[in-house]
Amino acid sequence: MQSILPRAVRELSNELTRLPGIGPKSARRLAIHLLRQPRQVVGRLGDAMKNLHANVQVCSWCYNLADDELCVVCKDEMREKSRICIVESPLDVEAIERSGSYNGLYHVLGGVLSPVEGITEDQLTMSELVQRMQKGIVTEVIVALNPTLEGEATARHISQLLGQREIEITRLGRGLPTGGDIEFADAITLSAAFEGRKEMS
Amino acid sequence: MQSILPRAVRELSNELTRLPGIGPKSARRLAIHLLRQPRQVVGRLGDAMKNLHANVQVCSWCYNLADDELCVVCKDEMREKSRICIVESPLDVEAIERSGSYNGLYHVLGGVLSPVEGITEDQLTMSELVQRMQKGIVTEVIVALNPTLEGEATARHISQLLGQREIEITRLGRGLPTGGDIEFADAITLSAAFEGRKEMS
Repeated sequence: MQSILPRAVRELSNELTRLPGIGPKSARRLAIHLLRQPRQVVGRLGDAMKNLHANVQVCSWCYNLADDELCVVCKDEMREKSRICIVESPLDVEAIERSGSYNGLYHVLGGVLSPVEGITEDQLTMSELVQRMQKGIVTEVIVALNPTLEGEATARHISQLLGQREIEITRLGRGLPTGGDIEFADAITLSAAFEGRKEMS
Repeated sequence: MQSILPRAVRELSNELTRLPGIGPKSARRLAIHLLRQPRQVVGRLGDAMKNLHANVQVCSWCYNLADDELCVVCKDEMREKSRICIVESPLDVEAIERSGSYNGLYHVLGGVLSPVEGITEDQLTMSELVQRMQKGIVTEVIVALNPTLEGEATARHISQLLGQREIEITRLGRGLPTGGDIEFADAITLSAAFEGRKEMS
């Protein structure tokens, strides 16, 4: 039995099912909900989506999301340029910045190594990280990957990759619960994790 | 602490928090998720939202959603025009049509009476319903409102409103849902199931 909803509602519902966690029924409900909102509100949401890719860049230095060529962290003259914190995603940068517990630069990997999902070194900004190290300014690398199996393995890989250099490599203290998510950690937990960071052997 | 995410991501996140059940953190995740999708996919979603209001009409006959002046049900010459099923929303029409158990017309109320939420008769298509009755074609009205307190009260109100006319007013049968569990059924559902018991043939 084909849906009897208007074409525009069906089209929107179909597109909405591409969002994570939204099935056909939720999508229809969401479409009807949007139909009940003022036209301008839904128009603004539509515009924000259409403008997203055009207006977001990747920082050419740390691979964080940016408005321009450099992200707000790399642009900031006050940051300590001798420290780099390696994170998985821009949302992790956002969470750490919110905690106010770190004043160095970042390096956004864009993911973690995952044989299961077929994510290899080439799909991450791993060689770009090594290149950054070659400038010789960095004295400490803080590995702030999620405390999952893949995150741990990636941390070890980074440690091996940078191990020959005269760099102190630390990782965040295990104030973070195993299986947890940096993005959703509260500021105190994050501060504790920064304070309790340990040298990788 | 202000967000360090790019402006386009923050703008989209803000708009996304208007959706039901999406808080600031989910909105940011959703925005980043969309940023990882191909530009055309997100563009199509944006277009579908922008086109929504312009391309959806309300059926001038039954107040269901429609592509044109009349919805697909009212356009259909094969439907029994002597029966009207009163529902709360277009999604209820969709569900009943999917079940294939009804061949009459509909009347979409647009909600139910709710003193708590300040929804009165004027905000529903109640007077339009009475007007439809005056044409004298309708012989049966099936009240198919949700079995909630507000739905029940609205059903009683409709029954009083149309009671003087020569119209059979029925409501959907109540009882155990198929696949349901007696153990977990509430008392009111069980009472309804006992009252509505049928002889086994």
